[in-house]
Formats: sequence, C-alpha cells, structure tokens
Amino acid sequence: MSSVFVVNSGSSSLKYQLIDLATGESRLSGLIERIGEPDSFIADHSEGMNVVLAKLGNVDDLVAVGHRVVHGGSEFDGPTLITDEVEREIDALSRLAPLHNPANLLGIRAAKKALPQVPHVAVFDTAFHQSMAPAAYTYAIDKDIAREYKVRRYGFHGTSHKYVSEQAAVMLGKPLGAVRSIILHLGNGASITAVDGGKSVDTSMGLTPLQGLVMGTRSGDIDPAVLVHLNRAAGMSISELDVLLNKQSGLLGLTGMGDMRDVQDAAINGNEEAELALQVWRHRIRHYIGAYFAQLGGLDALVFTAGIGENNALLRRRALAGLEHLGIEIDNDRNELSSRAARVISPAGARVTVMVIPTNEELEIARQVESLVL
Amino acid sequence: MSSVFVVNSGSSSLKYQLIDLATGESRLSGLIERIGEPDSFIADHSEGMNVVLAKLGNVDDLVAVGHRVVHGGSEFDGPTLITDEVEREIDALSRLAPLHNPANLLGIRAAKKALPQVPHVAVFDTAFHQSMAPAAYTYAIDKDIAREYKVRRYGFHGTSHKYVSEQAAVMLGKPLGAVRSIILHLGNGASITAVDGGKSVDTSMGLTPLQGLVMGTRSGDIDPAVLVHLNRAAGMSISELDVLLNKQSGLLGLTGMGDMRDVQDAAINGNEEAELALQVWRHRIRHYIGAYFAQLGGLDALVFTAGIGENNALLRRRALAGLEHLGIEIDNDRNELSSRAARVISPAGARVTVMVIPTNEELEIARQVESLVL
Ligand SMILES: Nc1ncnc2c1ncn2[C@@H]1O[C@H](COP(=O)(O)OP(=O)(O)O)[C@@H](O)[C@H]1O
Ligand SMILES: Nc1ncnc2c1ncn2[C@@H]1O[C@H](COP(=O)(O)OP(=O)(O)O)[C@@H](O)[C@H]1O
Repeated sequence: MSSVFVVNSGSSSLKYQLIDLATGESRLSGLIERIGEPDSFIADHSEGMNVVLAKLGNVDDLVAVGHRVVHGGSEFDGPTLITDEVEREIDALSRLAPLHNPANLLGIRAAKKALPQVPHVAVFDTAFHQSMAPAAYTYAIDKDIAREYKVRRYGFHGTSHKYVSEQAAVMLGKPLGAVRSIILHLGNGASITAVDGGKSVDTSMGLTPLQGLVMGTRSGDIDPAVLVHLNRAAGMSISELDVLLNKQSGLLGLTGMGDMRDVQDAAINGNEEAELALQVWRHRIRHYIGAYFAQLGGLDALVFTAGIGENNALLRRRALAGLEHLGIEIDNDRNELSSRAARVISPAGARVTVMVIPTNEELEIARQVESLVL
Repeated sequence: MSSVFVVNSGSSSLKYQLIDLATGESRLSGLIERIGEPDSFIADHSEGMNVVLAKLGNVDDLVAVGHRVVHGGSEFDGPTLITDEVEREIDALSRLAPLHNPANLLGIRAAKKALPQVPHVAVFDTAFHQSMAPAAYTYAIDKDIAREYKVRRYGFHGTSHKYVSEQAAVMLGKPLGAVRSIILHLGNGASITAVDGGKSVDTSMGLTPLQGLVMGTRSGDIDPAVLVHLNRAAGMSISELDVLLNKQSGLLGLTGMGDMRDVQDAAINGNEEAELALQVWRHRIRHYIGAYFAQLGGLDALVFTAGIGENNALLRRRALAGLEHLGIEIDNDRNELSSRAARVISPAGARVTVMVIPTNEELEIARQVESLVL
C-alpha cells in the first residue's frame, strides 16, 4: 500500500487529504482555518501542519506530499519536484498571484519541515493550459510590456479540467487523443476549457482567475475601459477596482447574493435582479460554448463539473437550452436523476455526449505526484 | 431633388458629405483637418464650417443636416432632432465618450450657426445596438455602481452594422425579419455584431470601443486584471494604461505596425511577430463567430465590411478557414475577384451566404435623417 498526502494551503488555512494510491480513495481529509488570527489556537502554518500530522498518525506508506500551487507561469507545465530553486521560482511568480502563491509557499515550507523524509511535489493550476497555442494565450497589447511583466493568458482550474476531460474519454470509451470536449467547471470560481485530444487549447480565465464566466463574486469579462471610466467618474482607485471586480461583482454584485442556490431561489420567487443574473450567467456560458465549438471544429463531449455543475439540474438545463442546432441536448430524466456518480445526461444517440463528472482535484494531484516519484 | 448634408466632427477635423436623396450618391465630400492647431488657417469649427459651406455653394434643396454622434447612451435608439435639450444630453454623455461627444458637439454647434434654416439630426453609433437584451448588455458588476455610472455594453459602429445587415437581406432576397446574420466590420477599429431579424442582439464592443476584436491600436478583450497587474508591477497609472490599451496595443502593440497592410506584408516576408499578430487577430474573430452562431441558433449570412473586410481577400479567407463545420465556406475565385460592389463570396448552395458589402455610413445617416424629417 502507498499513499500521497495532498496539501492545499491558503493564507490562513490548510486543506489536506491522504489519498490511497491503490484505491484512489481519501483515507482522511480536513481543513484547518483561521491560522494566525488573534484568537486562534494555531499561530502559523508549521503549527497547523503538526496538528494535522498528529491526526494522521503513523503513515508508513507515504510516498510523497503533493502541493497545490496556483500559479506556475510559463515555467511549469507538469508536476514538479520542489527543490530550493523551484521554491524560489514559485515565490517569483507571486507577482502574478499575490494572494495565492505566497500562501501556497507557507504550506510547502511547513510540510517540508514536518515531513523531510519524502519528496514534495508541486502541481500547478495553470499547468494543464500550457498546451495552448500562442494564438490563444497572447493578448494584443504592447509586446515588450507583455514580455517584461509576463502578461498573457494562463488559465486556472487546470487540475480539474485535466481530470474531468480524461474521465470523459474513459466514459466515452474512446482514446483520449480522439476526443474533443468542452469542460464547464462551475463552482464558486468558474471556467470553461476547450480540450482537443487531451490538451487544453483554450480556456476562459486569463492572466488571473478574473476573466471569463460570471462567478460568485467575480465579474468575468468586461470592457477593460470600465476600470478607466470608474476611476475617472467615480474616483475609484486601482485597489478599490480590484476589490470591486474580484469580491463584489458576479452574482453577488448583480443580486446581493453570492451563492448560486440563493440566487436561484430568489429568481424562482420572482426576484427580478436574480432572474437577470441567471440570464447574464447563461448568456456568457453559451458565448463560450459557441466559441469553443467553432475552434474545436466540432464536439464529442460537453461536461459539467464542480459545485453548481455537479449538483444543479435546472441550471444545467438552462445553460444549454437553445443549443440543439449544435447537437447539444439534455435528456430531462437523466439530467434530473440525483446521483454522485459520473453520468451521461444527453439522450441516447445525441451528437454531443453531455455528462456530469464530479471533479476530484486531490486525486488528480495524487496521481500526478505518483507518476513523478514512483 | 433634395439632399442631406452629413457631418462627422472630430476634435480637430470636419468630415462631410452632401448626399443626394434621389440617387443615394455623394455630390461632394471632403475633410478639413488640423482645426485650431497653431499653424493652421482655420481657428475653430465655425470657421471650418464656413469654408465647407463656401465650397458647397448654393444648396437650395438641402432638407436637413445629419450629425454622426458617437455615444447615445441608453437614451437614444434612433435618429433624433437636435434640440437644446438633446445637445445637453449629448454633452452629459461625454463622461462615457470623453474624446468623441464633445468633438461631435463642436460640429453640431458650428453647423447649426451656419445653417439655422434646416433641421439638424443626430445619428448615434450606439443606437442600433439598443435592441440588445439585458442578458447581452449587462456586465456582472455591482448593480448600484453600474446604474449610477451607466456601466453596461453599448456597442459602436451601429450605423455601419445596420446598413450592412439590411443590404445583406436585400442581396439574399429575403425579408429582413427572416435573416440571421453576423457582420464583421474590420477597419481601423473593428467590431462584430449578431443581427437577428434586423435587430442587433449582441456586439463585441462594450462600454467603449476598446472591447472585443484585435484592432489597429486597441487590445480588444483582455483580463481586466491586466490593468491592476501593470499598475502594481510596472507602476503604470490609469491614464498610462488607458493610452497603452487604446493607442499602443492591437496590431501596433504586437508588431510595431498599426496598418494591416504592413502587418500582412511583413508576415509574408517571414516576420514572426507579424505572423503571430495575424494568428491572434484570426483567433479572436473565430471566437466571436462561434459565440454568435450559437446565440443566433444558426446563420444565414456572414458579411465582411470596412477597410480590411472590403479589400483583403487573403485575410477574409484566413479568418474563416476551418469553420466549414458551421457551414461557413469561401469560394476562392469569387473571393479574389477585385470589385467595389456588394457581392457573394461563398460557393453556390453553401449553408451560410458569405458576402462582402462596402459600408456607407454617410448614406445610412442621410436615409435615417430623411425618415425623420420628410
Ligand atoms: N445544488 C446547488 N445549486 C447551485 N449551486 C450549488 C449547489 N451546490 C453547490 N453549489 C455552489 O457551488 C459552490 C461551490 O463549488 P465548489 O466547486 O465546491 O467550490 P470552489 O469553486 O470554491 O472550489 C458554492 O458556492 C455553491 O454556490
Ligand atoms: N487591402 C487592404 N488590406 C488590409 N488592410 C486594409 C486594406 N485596405 C484598407 N485597409 C485597412 O483598413 C483601415 C481603414 O478602414 P476604414 O474602415 O476605412 O477605417 P476606419 O475604421 O478608420 O473607419 C486602414 O487602417 C487599413 O489598415
């Protein structure tokens, strides 16, 4: 038996899971929060890690620790053994992900100190999207500024998109190389990826996780001139605009509610702002489905995953309504069947196989770690 | 006989055309530049207007003056007689178009003074897109800020998109109400519009003409967080970012060349930056074609217009290559035929009729003015 310990470290939290490699099951999982806050028992990530390891007990079969790292820039396109040099590079990429990479590093350092005897491996949210062609990842801005400040599309949720697109090929019973799919990761954050033969060819998030779909609190796509206009007309500073677009926009900005369940309930009860928010949310999803359908030259599978995508049949149906001319259809009975399993929700014989596949980023991280160290 | 005088006023320029309503032909057209510059003969727009009117001579049959106005906000959805109240509203909308509306007003005031005996009519670039549904024009940001500062998608080039989409229905020999079309206006500025039954249902430009396609000097779509990142990492101010994205981006930013002809020549001669710029340009066009194809539920006509769209067969072919699965095809002989006339360039019997239709915003303005005043 062997296992991988998967760590997802936030600035004041530690999420962890011990994955059994033989079964793919989680033996133990948990979350420590409010690390370092004034009234917290846990002063820093090292203390947090020791608390976690005490719970884990004796893990003789641990082969490695896998760390989720948000931003791997253009440097990392797969799982990477964390050397001192790699730590420095993750640190240097903090300029692109100032909230995430430093927090991820806190977890890496605490875990390395507590578990020095096993390899530590970084798995990046951006890595899967490194296969995008320059046409897809280049923004049309000044090329020298773009190079100097590493401005380009990176894309995120890559571990989830990779896992789900591979599961989709398995469910279709086709070789990965022969499948064109669109993956809709709809959670608190949301992104959509076009996958051709197992490779990400385009994705909706960009330099940061702000671009693309309508999310819980993020705007997704807007005219970049909105920032200039609100600076001039409303006197908002760049920092205020950053907070506005990342924390006070999306469903929350449109309705005052950041959780899709509340928005949906409100819409059903006649709240017009909530209904509009759902329409904007749907409009943006259909926009990207059409764009990626065109770019892929056709489509074999369309897959829903993450909190909203896995759990909400009504919103799945609403997102796809009116796309029948692309061969995209849902079977209502299949769609409404309550299940935690990966499943097909399009009618038998449909041109595009529509599926729900629960994502499992921890398992995907463990598998990537396994492929590197074993 | 009767005629309409069409004025397009910039901050230091006056473009004009006298349109004969019976024939639709231009009797006289011209451009005065460098108004008010230190070494210019012409001190202000009033002087400029007098110079123009002297050239016009005696225009007994003039029925009205039509003014191109860039931003009509949510207030104006069609040609509008310019009263003092309307002038004030155009002025108030300057907050949304600080470079354009004040310049348009200079032309309006000079023309009203010089030609007080005829009605003056404003035709707005935004008006045609006022038919978009809230799902298409609403950005997912804080609803109160959006309302207060009028932040939403407006869209531009509306006069051109309206003219060209109506011509397309005529050429198809179908009633306007039965035609779904995508109009690609590819000039210095560039935008794409989905038109359903004569109504704009979505368009790529947004609050300002910055959003959407890759243009001569504008970036089009980017992650809005690019502004935040460049402010923090490069110390650029909002004003510098405004200039960067509007004047130093697009083809110019990617290649150092802002004119598509130069970019194409360079790409043909092996310049890799130019080749990349064409790939990014094409990628973005195909993205929107796919998105609008999905939203329209199918497509009858796809039309190229404006400088690049009307004149460059190679780029038309390149933009559409690989979209055959959507029924979008080009006939090479038809495409390469050099002509100034509206024409079909798809093969006989193609599912989607691809056309080139020269735009004529002055004629469209004259026709709208005629419909209002006669
Ligand atoms: N049945 C449901 N209907 C609508 N939304 C749901 C449902 N279940 C979960 N969600 C949404 O999914 C989100 C969490 O998605 P998840 O993928 O777990 O999170 P994250 O994006 O934070 O990783 C929650 O914010 C919640 O709004
Ligand atoms: N044959 C051509 N090939 C490529 N680009 C062309 C060609 N002819 C004109 N253009 C481009 O069209 C642009 C002008 O387009 P136009 O629609 O007239 O202008 P605007 O967008 O300024 O109204 C020029 O900047 C030029 O780059």
